[in-house]
Amino acid sequence: MNLSHIEHIGIAVKSLDEAIPFWENMLGLKCYTIEEVKEQKVKTAFFQIGQSKIELLESTDPEGPIGKFIEKKGEGIHHLAIAVKHIQQNLTELEINGVQLIDKTPRKGAEGLDIAFIHPKATHGVLLELCENNNL
Amino acid sequence: MNLSHIEHIGIAVKSLDEAIPFWENMLGLKCYTIEEVKEQKVKTAFFQIGQSKIELLESTDPEGPIGKFIEKKGEGIHHLAIAVKHIQQNLTELEINGVQLIDKTPRKGAEGLDIAFIHPKATHGVLLELCENNNL
Repeated sequence: MNLSHIEHIGIAVKSLDEAIPFWENMLGLKCYTIEEVKEQKVKTAFFQIGQSKIELLESTDPEGPIGKFIEKKGEGIHHLAIAVKHIQQNLTELEINGVQLIDKTPRKGAEGLDIAFIHPKATHGVLLELCENNNL
Repeated sequence: MNLSHIEHIGIAVKSLDEAIPFWENMLGLKCYTIEEVKEQKVKTAFFQIGQSKIELLESTDPEGPIGKFIEKKGEGIHHLAIAVKHIQQNLTELEINGVQLIDKTPRKGAEGLDIAFIHPKATHGVLLELCENNNL
């Protein structure tokens, strides 16, 4: 498996409007897009930092994954996403090795990327996302 | 403030011996150092991934910060660390702007870096570490 770099860090926030100013005004990053991912019941805001991105996630539905996460744990880091080539091949290999997957086949995530999640039970508590990038 | 890139992601684990094989054998990363940071009551294991690192943190004392984190929240992502130039200047600027800091002056962290933490109350729930790197 060839992991390239940290694609993004996903951070659950109650409100993009309240959280974005900290990252822009205090840290000097620039929010370059705000996008709704209906399937995940979130609105996302992205900031580039080096090779990686910060993704703020605001729930659009209390029953969605981010709504439930905030209810249980409060605002904070939600997942770690890593850029890989050939995501399906990697998922198949992980499954053969007994790694518990949330997605056995990729689905569309924010920014139109093919993504899949590995279950936190397999990673010692980290919700780990793989993001396909075949231009690496 | 000039943030350069994600320096590392800190992940709290119960046991380095149990967690390292996932990152090495399943994901293909290589642990390049294991180090004790006595002041923080942790043993750390580092993996390089692109510009960034994964830092696994095992508590050496149940009363230390990682011991308490795991007791409260379980294993998982603990903090996000960002590389910056001139850390003291940035801390002073953040303080002037009313950002709540855990460390108003830098201290030594893993790998001998000068580091400082921003309080999660200031960041919408993220324990954010700044790591000085003046070679950026």
